[in-house]
Amino acid sequence: MKSTDWEVIKAAKEAGIPDPGFEIDKNTAIVITDPQNDFLRDDGVAWPVVKASVKENDTINNMSKVFKLARENKIKVFISPHYFFPTDHGWKFEGALEKFMHVKEMYLRKGRLDMTDFESSGADFLDEFKSYLDDDNIILCNPHKIYGPQTTDLNLQLRKYKIEKVLMAGMSTNLCLESHTRDLLEEGFEVGVIADASASAKLPGMDTFQAALMNLRLITSHIFTTEEFEEALKSFKSS
Amino acid sequence: MKSTDWEVIKAAKEAGIPDPGFEIDKNTAIVITDPQNDFLRDDGVAWPVVKASVKENDTINNMSKVFKLARENKIKVFISPHYFFPTDHGWKFEGALEKFMHVKEMYLRKGRLDMTDFESSGADFLDEFKSYLDDDNIILCNPHKIYGPQTTDLNLQLRKYKIEKVLMAGMSTNLCLESHTRDLLEEGFEVGVIADASASAKLPGMDTFQAALMNLRLITSHIFTTEEFEEALKSFKSS
Amino acid sequence: MKSTDWEVIKAAKEAGIPDPGFEIDKNTAIVITDPQNDFLRDDGVAWPVVKASVKENDTINNMSKVFKLARENKIKVFISPHYFFPTDHGWKFEGALEKFMHVKEMYLRKGRLDMTDFESSGADFLDEFKSYLDDDNIILCNPHKIYGPQTTDLNLQLRKYKIEKVLMAGMSTNLCLESHTRDLLEEGFEVGVIADASASAKLPGMDTFQAALMNLRLITSHIFTTEEFEEALKSFKSS
Amino acid sequence: MKSTDWEVIKAAKEAGIPDPGFEIDKNTAIVITDPQNDFLRDDGVAWPVVKASVKENDTINNMSKVFKLARENKIKVFISPHYFFPTDHGWKFEGALEKFMHVKEMYLRKGRLDMTDFESSGADFLDEFKSYLDDDNIILCNPHKIYGPQTTDLNLQLRKYKIEKVLMAGMSTNLCLESHTRDLLEEGFEVGVIADASASAKLPGMDTFQAALMNLRLITSHIFTTEEFEEALKSFKSS
Repeated sequence: MKSTDWEVIKAAKEAGIPDPGFEIDKNTAIVITDPQNDFLRDDGVAWPVVKASVKENDTINNMSKVFKLARENKIKVFISPHYFFPTDHGWKFEGALEKFMHVKEMYLRKGRLDMTDFESSGADFLDEFKSYLDDDNIILCNPHKIYGPQTTDLNLQLRKYKIEKVLMAGMSTNLCLESHTRDLLEEGFEVGVIADASASAKLPGMDTFQAALMNLRLITSHIFTTEEFEEALKSFKSS
Repeated sequence: MKSTDWEVIKAAKEAGIPDPGFEIDKNTAIVITDPQNDFLRDDGVAWPVVKASVKENDTINNMSKVFKLARENKIKVFISPHYFFPTDHGWKFEGALEKFMHVKEMYLRKGRLDMTDFESSGADFLDEFKSYLDDDNIILCNPHKIYGPQTTDLNLQLRKYKIEKVLMAGMSTNLCLESHTRDLLEEGFEVGVIADASASAKLPGMDTFQAALMNLRLITSHIFTTEEFEEALKSFKSS
Repeated sequence: MKSTDWEVIKAAKEAGIPDPGFEIDKNTAIVITDPQNDFLRDDGVAWPVVKASVKENDTINNMSKVFKLARENKIKVFISPHYFFPTDHGWKFEGALEKFMHVKEMYLRKGRLDMTDFESSGADFLDEFKSYLDDDNIILCNPHKIYGPQTTDLNLQLRKYKIEKVLMAGMSTNLCLESHTRDLLEEGFEVGVIADASASAKLPGMDTFQAALMNLRLITSHIFTTEEFEEALKSFKSS
Repeated sequence: MKSTDWEVIKAAKEAGIPDPGFEIDKNTAIVITDPQNDFLRDDGVAWPVVKASVKENDTINNMSKVFKLARENKIKVFISPHYFFPTDHGWKFEGALEKFMHVKEMYLRKGRLDMTDFESSGADFLDEFKSYLDDDNIILCNPHKIYGPQTTDLNLQLRKYKIEKVLMAGMSTNLCLESHTRDLLEEGFEVGVIADASASAKLPGMDTFQAALMNLRLITSHIFTTEEFEEALKSFKSS
């Protein structure tokens, strides 16, 4: 699909919102948020609410393709996972979806230094992505705790690898992907989004993917689809 | 109006999204983003795109009321303004709306230490708010540069005044108000929103206020209207 | 020992530097940096350079005592560990001691999700502290990567537990302890230091503990020794 | 002078501390903290305590030379000033030197939007530097409030100008210069220091310049003197 298949992207164009564009170069990396079972596997805690969006966007195939294209083009992929630990359940206050995540034991691990029962749990990575995760181009970061990377080493890891431009993908579009995007902008990165390698909760009267797409179109440099990302890589390869 | 007059708020309730609530106490402050002419005066740079939302929400009257209620209840108000300076126009890259703001000379001041022509400019505060701004309860912070407070002393100022809970108001809902909200959550504040003391761009196919309302309902502790905020202050006063 | 046994602390007093004091209350926590073998065990990578200071300060006993007193007084202890992973060795540039740490494989773990060979390695906690680490009052944070907590969730964890005041201890005084102190001040915490529950490199012409003590005296609210901390807890208990 | 004229620098070399080096390139900028009267003019609030160090280092001439060399070589200079405003005096707590600064009304301005009486005040820039400050290569940032840049837009400004490497100069070495250095390292910048274009408090038993020099040698990539910086620029120019 093309990004112009989304009504919001067309509307932005018609309204004359600038589209600065995003050129992939050797200082570009991909950042993937929450590629985890609790969002993407059919027994995941959040699967019931994101399922419709995952199917519409063909998210799992597109995320797999992003991993594959990154490997083939030697583009670094920084993964920002979401984990909770038993001590996080002692927090004195939470926002709405933080409450939901804690009650549902989303992303819960036994401990920071305890991998017991991690494999194949809701906190683990989706099986479809596992063959990519041991590659040389993959950098796994400190887990985030609310929605943004402010509690992680993502910014430092990117800079230590001389990355200046970032393409976002992963779950979920209006929460962790968007909070990462907003913070990376404040940290002075040029940011684009591969929007159909992402998905988001869709409930009656609440299509959060469309809300996110609107915001991301306004604040980033460019919205890609996975197909458009693949196309853009051709100029990168030949450069 | 009541927050349940918004369809999104009703939808969230019906979907069973938790609503943690927000109790105003002595460690609560109000944070107001961008209460400035370029958004709110009819010759402002962004007025044409936010006008519809400002009118629907009765934003100017509601923001004035929030200032008034804060003064009466001795609640601190931290203002996070948006200013650009000539050197900002030398930046090497910008996202979509950053380009718009620079081209339109939105929020432009002569210099950081130069107040020439500031008064009544697009960067200045709306006249309606000026009678409140010299009060003892007003703390003006370093200006932000993209949309969030990461480039300012807002977090420090709040903590130096022992503030732990924040109610957001101001312009515009999906950009600076939402980026402030998202970052304050990562900084460990309890956050609520007075949503009709805010407004946001509304273009064909892009109702950014509704997009923001959806996100804010999901990530914060509670959505108030100004009327509900006034009501909530009664319990605060009698406590 | 008393803090006035240190010449630097006496000099500060004689020079009239204010000493704001630090009152322990229910919103006070302890933050401990790098309580790990690579600093504190006699085969640790950095042991040869910190050994003299560890002995002078009786650091291991004092850190143990801080853990013990915290448990007895139900004071939360936030541990900020230092870990490196193989991907960190791909960084494109490093400062002086970062180079040292990478060459010496200090704090090296097999992977973020791989605990193989961790137990009793240089990255593991000192045996003397292990009996305290599973207590309810212990919160282990994301690992830091350079010297400060900017790459971790320490600030958020403290705030989620409503902590406003922090007492610092751990290794090493002028590097991770001091960088944590400096950042926590910017985040709006009131900070004190238990200085002999810490130690630092001592080389000919470079007594980094004294350098740190000088800085910490100037920027924090108060310098304690472990003995003085124990004394201060008596007023806390009776309050 | 040469950096090896300092005993600490010689000691570090003899101890075998790595010295990664710092190559000036087109992505290098200078960051100058607090080039202000309250430190550097003989009626400044902090002059009595820094005077000895300013004279030993010939700081004012060296800072002027750094400004001059930057202009000649078209190197950007980011100035991070220190200002306080009347509302800052309402803070509920302060560390030791924060108390000193507030009591002494150091860096005090009338208001964020009020330049009355600023010119030639303790908060203003030293006359010796003023002829450089309107140049195209000067970027003035949001003021910091404690010692570090976490409360400013320095990081963003540097990144928006594609700066990756930073040379530090300015006042005072162990406070604002060092806190800036420590935070910029966490933000992923390569950092060097022009150490004699700086100075620091010197009191009986407290030579804070030597303490800072020790720390800076250990955490940054290289220590320059102004003379060595000038020399290094020759290779830059011919590149």
